[in-house]
Amino acid sequence: MESIVLINPYQVAAGQEEACLAIWREADDYLRRQDGFIARKLHASLDPGARFRFVNVAVWRSVVHFQRAIATAEFQQIVERLPCPNFPSLYQIVAD
Amino acid sequence: MESIVLINPYQVAAGQEEACLAIWREADDYLRRQDGFIARKLHASLDPGARFRFVNVAVWRSVVHFQRAIATAEFQQIVERLPCPNFPSLYQIVAD
Repeated sequence: MESIVLINPYQVAAGQEEACLAIWREADDYLRRQDGFIARKLHASLDPGARFRFVNVAVWRSVVHFQRAIATAEFQQIVERLPCPNFPSLYQIVAD
Repeated sequence: MESIVLINPYQVAAGQEEACLAIWREADDYLRRQDGFIARKLHASLDPGARFRFVNVAVWRSVVHFQRAIATAEFQQIVERLPCPNFPSLYQIVAD
């Protein structure tokens, strides 16, 4: 089965950068320990006023692995504290 | 100088996928010929109803190279025909 890519852009209000990153790091610590996690890169915009201040791009072994990882109560208790709207979706690479 | 990452999420109305991709390909053909272009991956969402149907993630040698590439009349005449709202910004990788 082909690996898949999670892309999650974060909309961060001015002054909320650190609050948002603190919870992101908790989620990241959890996700990197899960079966099927391959890699991730967190991107911060050069322009602090960009529509999406942070974008996480992560590679997972499969959709099933990712869905198992986020279905736990432990993960839900982390992400429900995220103070910034974010729009996670799963992707495949169609041009490389 | 460190390389930088362009991330561009595309909001695509139902039925506009091909129209959006056709112009994206024109822009892509142009950008890949420009000085400072390193690589790009176009991602398509597994869920056709995802908020961002396509996300382009491209690596450029520097901000200056990217800005020179998009400042031309040739590029502007391509992107002004894009039928889908998109939100390009430049990023640095802050966790890898």
